[in-house]
Amino acid sequence: MSLKGAVLFGQSGGPTSVINSSAAGVFLTALKHEEITGVYGALHGIHGVINDNLIDISKEDVDELQRLKYTPAAALGSVRYKLRHFKDDPTDYHKILDTFKKHNIRYFFYCGGNDSMDTCHKISDFMKEQDYECRIIGIPKTIDNDLMCIDHTPGYGSAAKYIATTISQVILDAISYTKSRVTIIETMGRHTGWLAAASILARVNGLGPDLVYIPEIPFDVDDFIEDVARLYRENKRVIAVVSEGIVDASGNFVLEKSENVEVDHFGHVHLGGVGYRLANEVKRRLELQTRVMELNLMQRCASHLASKVDVEEAFMFGKKAVELALQGVTDSMVTLKRVKMNYKVEYGVIPLNQVANFERCMPREWMNERGNNVLPEFIDYALPLIKGENRVKYEKGLPRFAKLKKIKAE
Amino acid sequence: MSLKGAVLFGQSGGPTSVINSSAAGVFLTALKHEEITGVYGALHGIHGVINDNLIDISKEDVDELQRLKYTPAAALGSVRYKLRHFKDDPTDYHKILDTFKKHNIRYFFYCGGNDSMDTCHKISDFMKEQDYECRIIGIPKTIDNDLMCIDHTPGYGSAAKYIATTISQVILDAISYTKSRVTIIETMGRHTGWLAAASILARVNGLGPDLVYIPEIPFDVDDFIEDVARLYRENKRVIAVVSEGIVDASGNFVLEKSENVEVDHFGHVHLGGVGYRLANEVKRRLELQTRVMELNLMQRCASHLASKVDVEEAFMFGKKAVELALQGVTDSMVTLKRVKMNYKVEYGVIPLNQVANFERCMPREWMNERGNNVLPEFIDYALPLIKGENRVKYEKGLPRFAKLKKIKAE
Repeated sequence: MSLKGAVLFGQSGGPTSVINSSAAGVFLTALKHEEITGVYGALHGIHGVINDNLIDISKEDVDELQRLKYTPAAALGSVRYKLRHFKDDPTDYHKILDTFKKHNIRYFFYCGGNDSMDTCHKISDFMKEQDYECRIIGIPKTIDNDLMCIDHTPGYGSAAKYIATTISQVILDAISYTKSRVTIIETMGRHTGWLAAASILARVNGLGPDLVYIPEIPFDVDDFIEDVARLYRENKRVIAVVSEGIVDASGNFVLEKSENVEVDHFGHVHLGGVGYRLANEVKRRLELQTRVMELNLMQRCASHLASKVDVEEAFMFGKKAVELALQGVTDSMVTLKRVKMNYKVEYGVIPLNQVANFERCMPREWMNERGNNVLPEFIDYALPLIKGENRVKYEKGLPRFAKLKKIKAE
Repeated sequence: MSLKGAVLFGQSGGPTSVINSSAAGVFLTALKHEEITGVYGALHGIHGVINDNLIDISKEDVDELQRLKYTPAAALGSVRYKLRHFKDDPTDYHKILDTFKKHNIRYFFYCGGNDSMDTCHKISDFMKEQDYECRIIGIPKTIDNDLMCIDHTPGYGSAAKYIATTISQVILDAISYTKSRVTIIETMGRHTGWLAAASILARVNGLGPDLVYIPEIPFDVDDFIEDVARLYRENKRVIAVVSEGIVDASGNFVLEKSENVEVDHFGHVHLGGVGYRLANEVKRRLELQTRVMELNLMQRCASHLASKVDVEEAFMFGKKAVELALQGVTDSMVTLKRVKMNYKVEYGVIPLNQVANFERCMPREWMNERGNNVLPEFIDYALPLIKGENRVKYEKGLPRFAKLKKIKAE
């Protein structure tokens, strides 16, 4: 099974708080193995591979590589680029092969979401067809937690910890006033409700939201107004969390719908997200005071609040990928199975074609019947993922991030 | 100077990450002194005093009072209520006197911003007129940093640390893409630019914003578009920070102006803030991709990222207030003078009428000539204020906040 050659690692898709921890796992593990003749990073993912834009990781300080565990966003640069199939257009693939040959890349690790697993699978097929021996392993990451065949994705736990912490602080803020108000908090999640659901973990502090709406359950604005009105009558205060991607019964984004109706006349493209739209409905129909919070990018880059479980698992994904590839595994994604609910996991592999291009939704049975709140089963699932705090180092009051030299590979 | 009697403490105005640390300073100090016969907290500030809605702090666990140092938002409840002058309407004042007499309150500490100092001053005058002996001390707090006669206000350092950390993480996120974009980040600050300016502290990480706009300098949307266009040509990426309260040359809020022009036709009141308005201008005039982030409430309640300097100073303000009152000081606000830039402070007092109802602006000379960025002098001033990390305790992955029993005072 022994295969001598170099390692190449790249990052793709939306960053997370821990995507660089997987990079650290790959780099620090690969640098230790004799069979590995070089360790390279691709700048801006598959773009860097296509254009031979690689950096030499062996020239980086090990301390800085360690600091990748505490550095958010994609340190090598990310990309959103969907490769066409090589049978339709092999141009990119031949360039990738040229880069592989030039640096004798025999191990390729690509860290990303659904699309990236698809990219890995296509490259793997192409290399087989070209008889170029190499081992290709996908390393999952996405705050969205929407990959198939995995208990949860690296990045989700930290996003969930950020969301739950933020919600509990914001609710403390809201209840310190006598003034009544409807607060609408918008999370990411274009197609799935994992992030919005994470808000409910704030119940640990006795501070969970009153309402949670997710894209998997058709959103009805009349029902929403009814929910808000009822809770407001009872408590004089409502905290509602909504996924950015909630859709109506016909599958149209709630956001797009109201844009068409109310805004396009003036040529506006986008003023605030679905949270603002719903706040507007609450004001118009119920004449209540509202406040909107968009959690925005911080969900995926607030590394100062990353979950230790998540950081360590992301690192292990990188480490396992290298070890499995050395054992001969290829055309696969590293995965993780939970063997004890609270909490033990085991790592494994699955073929890339089983995971690519499918999306995992929140189980319907983890939501209440009316579809406006999350049930305790979800808390049992998600709470172990936010445990532990990341040991971020601070300098002059600010987190000290990894500084890479990024010396171009010869 | 000895005066035997009870202590009453209340909180007012917008919460901060450290307002409860001042509460801890008052409570833990007052509980130790023999002259002090009782320690009470007013629920929802002056409302609680007027309505005799007090809790008995001596019945709380000391551990929970200690945890107030790590608990954001106003733990006793806040209020926004401006007392009329007692010469115009003495009703509220007589109720306050009744509450004071009932519990033999001889020490009143009120934690808040400009309005609260004004409230303290009026109550002090009234008590003198009524010949009711009591000592009244204001304890400053505001993330806005806009109080007179003080080097900086408790709450500002933590907000500044949150803003600078967030900006550096968001910029890391932005630069990980090849895609070009204009990112607009909106901070709080209705009348002053201290919070927006804090974004520049991210330069410590080599990641400061490109443009910063503050309310003290008239905002010209044409100049803004010119600034953005120029920087975009140079870098293909622009990060601009704007205070929510920027005004044009006539003193009109930029936000209100565009609302009148573009939105009121449909009866919309508010869809996003000034950040979204400016993004819309960038899209319309320059046809560039934009992203908007509103830092929103997290600026004042992200206690997991509070500055240690700020937490400790806020505690000292509470402690000093009690000690000074015991020494006979009244009708004053505790203040703080910087005796060494990096970094030593001394506490003192000033008469309340010197601070009440004035607003401190960012010095013009700390901004560049064009008024679109912050100069290093500001960094020298603000960097010491964000130093050190708060030792928040976590339970099950979430911050553990103080839990008060809030037993009503007899």
